[in-house]
Amino acid sequence: MRRDIDDILRERGLSAALVLKGESPNPTFRYLVGPPAAHISAGILVWRPGKRPHLVHGAMERDSAEATGFELSDYGSHGYRKIIEEEGNRERSMARLLAKVVAGLDVSGPILVHGFAEVGRFYHVLNRFREMAPGIEIAEDQDLGVFERARFTKDPDEVDAVRLVARACERAYARIREVIGGGHLEGKRLKNSEGWVTVGALRREVRRVFFEAGLEEPHGNIIAMGRDAGVPHNIGDDTDVLEEGRSIVIDLYPAQAGGGYFFDVTRTHCVGRAPTELKEIHALVREAVERTFDSLTPEAPARIYQEKVCDLFESRGHRTIRQDERLNEGYVHGLGHGIGLEVHERPNLGGPSQNADRIAVGSLFTVEPGLYYPSRDLGVRIEDVVHARPDGSFENLTDITYELEVAPASA
Amino acid sequence: MRRDIDDILRERGLSAALVLKGESPNPTFRYLVGPPAAHISAGILVWRPGKRPHLVHGAMERDSAEATGFELSDYGSHGYRKIIEEEGNRERSMARLLAKVVAGLDVSGPILVHGFAEVGRFYHVLNRFREMAPGIEIAEDQDLGVFERARFTKDPDEVDAVRLVARACERAYARIREVIGGGHLEGKRLKNSEGWVTVGALRREVRRVFFEAGLEEPHGNIIAMGRDAGVPHNIGDDTDVLEEGRSIVIDLYPAQAGGGYFFDVTRTHCVGRAPTELKEIHALVREAVERTFDSLTPEAPARIYQEKVCDLFESRGHRTIRQDERLNEGYVHGLGHGIGLEVHERPNLGGPSQNADRIAVGSLFTVEPGLYYPSRDLGVRIEDVVHARPDGSFENLTDITYELEVAPASA
Repeated sequence: MRRDIDDILRERGLSAALVLKGESPNPTFRYLVGPPAAHISAGILVWRPGKRPHLVHGAMERDSAEATGFELSDYGSHGYRKIIEEEGNRERSMARLLAKVVAGLDVSGPILVHGFAEVGRFYHVLNRFREMAPGIEIAEDQDLGVFERARFTKDPDEVDAVRLVARACERAYARIREVIGGGHLEGKRLKNSEGWVTVGALRREVRRVFFEAGLEEPHGNIIAMGRDAGVPHNIGDDTDVLEEGRSIVIDLYPAQAGGGYFFDVTRTHCVGRAPTELKEIHALVREAVERTFDSLTPEAPARIYQEKVCDLFESRGHRTIRQDERLNEGYVHGLGHGIGLEVHERPNLGGPSQNADRIAVGSLFTVEPGLYYPSRDLGVRIEDVVHARPDGSFENLTDITYELEVAPASA
Repeated sequence: MRRDIDDILRERGLSAALVLKGESPNPTFRYLVGPPAAHISAGILVWRPGKRPHLVHGAMERDSAEATGFELSDYGSHGYRKIIEEEGNRERSMARLLAKVVAGLDVSGPILVHGFAEVGRFYHVLNRFREMAPGIEIAEDQDLGVFERARFTKDPDEVDAVRLVARACERAYARIREVIGGGHLEGKRLKNSEGWVTVGALRREVRRVFFEAGLEEPHGNIIAMGRDAGVPHNIGDDTDVLEEGRSIVIDLYPAQAGGGYFFDVTRTHCVGRAPTELKEIHALVREAVERTFDSLTPEAPARIYQEKVCDLFESRGHRTIRQDERLNEGYVHGLGHGIGLEVHERPNLGGPSQNADRIAVGSLFTVEPGLYYPSRDLGVRIEDVVHARPDGSFENLTDITYELEVAPASA
């Protein structure tokens, strides 16, 4: 949680963290700054344990900078334009500015640098910075990283933000079931008053629900049928007409517009009656979700749930990724991941074998087993988000039916 | 343009560019890969002059990888999971994978690394990579960078994509004028059948127009009135009720959803009659735009247009940023910037004094002078996008009225 950051820095012997903001989204900057971060396009945030954070910002963004409540200075006050003119090189200029800022704040010793920007350029910036600031050591972050560890466990306001996104996802799935239920079959294919019902039509409905809710989909979404559903990250083909009995994997991961919190949920539906094989596989994936949820224990190693799901699937004759890293059919991925200001955070509920993450109290994570058989025109995934509550219990934040079959109107 | 990349790499003596894709958007990856890039969440693209590009991708994304037409290998084929288990450290694992990939493709000598990711982590990744791949040198990119230079001049399909976004912006401003024109004044404030008309109401209308057009606003937008309009990056206050005679700066910079092309345009409106001072300042800013457009010359140094605008404003009694880098009132920023897959590209039409960018034929850039007086409750900016056409002429892509005053309905 946010309040842990100073302790984590001290524990690791770090005198400060330099958090850089450029035009790329930086979820950690957002985490530290809060909503005003959305309107700060460039900045250097110096975070020192026990001290008021210091933000270097552009003068044109002085109002947003003011809203952070941090100690402030603008680029101009450090003579950045003059530095650029003197150095004549972007990497050296940025390095000299960083050196000037840390010197001005009396920062020395091992520090963490954390920012999202062009890594090839910053490789040279940081090498020059180290030369220009001889008292500074750029520490290698551990695994877990400083901010990964803080963000691993959520504050109540973070869980509330995620809940809001969950509610919009519920409406999106309700809308999808409504569209399917409002169509009728012509042969095997679904039609309604507007014509054939396609994957693209479902995607448009989802987009509209999220628009109305003030959400955006920075990484898109997955609505994939049949063979495409059997390739986990195939996003699906908008021109596909929905067909009776084929699996449709619907994986939605929207976030609050302007760089807020994510939700991440998957359901597998099929129009009308499902064939026996699909029903059985769906029931097994659902069993994997339910068994995982029922066996969750606070502070248990996250990896063991992946092992249990592999045990279950293998005992029913499916191959799993722990048997073969290059597997393309069967259970081909990890069981889940933390969620928050990024769609993939810690804990990691999958491999590798030395994964040391725990189901920490306060964490928020997905449980998302799946079985994939593209050669049989089939894929199934079910994904819920679980909150490890402070009292040691677990709450499933996902209130969306698992039901596989969605009946169209009778013709 | 895309076809220049190999020549640029050869000219600079680079044997390859390693373009890294992670969860952060990488506009250069999108540039090289095209639309399938939207569905590739992780990858290593090896670009060698004269050779077919090679993409290392995740097996779950094999369908999107296939759509690139590149030579492919998946992480599993390089034994990445085993590498992670052996190294037990993310930085070393990524470094070893990079070393293995370049060795497997016989890449050696100076290479460019280009990716958007966590720079603190990649500082260590790249230092280790250099140790593990002794034949490799990580070259420092020049200013202009390799990809900045290629992307500086646009292909016709890129200009077409930008035009589509321009059309949606025209609709957004038309909608804003419609909302203002549909309201009436009660005292100084604007009201319509739904109540007071606020900045937030305008922002909702804009968001709806862009939603309908398949656009998104990854950096938000600016709709700021009066004093807020006088602080260039103040995004405005949603609760402000529009008031007669106050300047409203409306700066929109949406992009095609899923990581496509941007447009960037600003108009300054006022509800009803504008006070004389605002009218004069607006006329002067408009004069600066028109003079700049009329004086554009292919291949001229981009910086001279900033100088000319400073000359103009100073001759009329305004202070400018070339007189004082810390200026907060007057003309406080640069004249413009290139636009494309990022909202800020090259050329740079502002400082510093050694800025060597030229108005290259094929480039696409903004012209956006402004005058800011927050202490007088006032700010004005006008921004157009100009295309330097292959035939040496210039086209203003922005077809939106400059008109300052928008009349509400008579009460």
